Amino acid sequence: MNSTPYTIEPIGHVRSALTQIQDAPMQGDEGAPEAWLELSTLVAQGLAGIKVGDELIVLTWLHLAQRDVLQVHPRGDPDRPLTGVFATRSPDRPNPVGLHRVLVLEVAEQKLRVVPLEAIDGTPIVDVKPVLAGSDPSDR
Amino acid sequence: MNSTPYTIEPIGHVRSALTQIQDAPMQGDEGAPEAWLELSTLVAQGLAGIKVGDELIVLTWLHLAQRDVLQVHPRGDPDRPLTGVFATRSPDRPNPVGLHRVLVLEVAEQKLRVVPLEAIDGTPIVDVKPVLAGSDPSDR
Repeated sequence: MNSTPYTIEPIGHVRSALTQIQDAPMQGDEGAPEAWLELSTLVAQGLAGIKVGDELIVLTWLHLAQRDVLQVHPRGDPDRPLTGVFATRSPDRPNPVGLHRVLVLEVAEQKLRVVPLEAIDGTPIVDVKPVLAGSDPSDR
Repeated sequence: MNSTPYTIEPIGHVRSALTQIQDAPMQGDEGAPEAWLELSTLVAQGLAGIKVGDELIVLTWLHLAQRDVLQVHPRGDPDRPLTGVFATRSPDRPNPVGLHRVLVLEVAEQKLRVVPLEAIDGTPIVDVKPVLAGSDPSDR
């Protein structure tokens, strides 16, 4: 692509009973389980203020995605016409950042238990943000 | 931080009349203008399927942000207690990815005119995703 690359350093990792990508639902609201967001000690103080019951947007790095894919059949359905990845939620895309809306179930020292999360165990976490009042962000 | 860094290569850049960060509203719904998302030729086919009237989530790289900030006074208000950046929408955070919900006003060959967008001119674009039906993602 055409310019300066930027480096993401994961702030932590997803800990989940989902270990195989083929077992993961396509979206959190399609039956995804709860999971832990385990943050690095170095950034744990960034969690201050997050409480049980908060709704968060979690950005992940979908590390198993293919980055050279620009068009896909939505939801892997060959009957649906090829569509640009930016018009889909395919994990395969140039910068495979996953967007997940979750509810906080438990806050521990440097980790959060959240639901639902379709990302598999070991998925790097890029960022965590609060849902803004009056908005309702979607998953992945 | 504690693991493999990942590299984001911008898929394009924001073209906006907003050129100074101090002129940018904190959130898109606080009076942000329209802007163009100008994609790299190399990834332009990823836009196929995006139409006028679509609602998109745009992820940007807030390249002027400070990455070593872990706690802030929300909205820069010293009367509000120091809060972890992951509990705020501060642009200053370890991985400064901006999240913006926009409406598509115009689709050109490799660019989209959208509104509202509080990111300044030249901001690198990380990803573009559709808003999922029934959801309503928030800004930044």
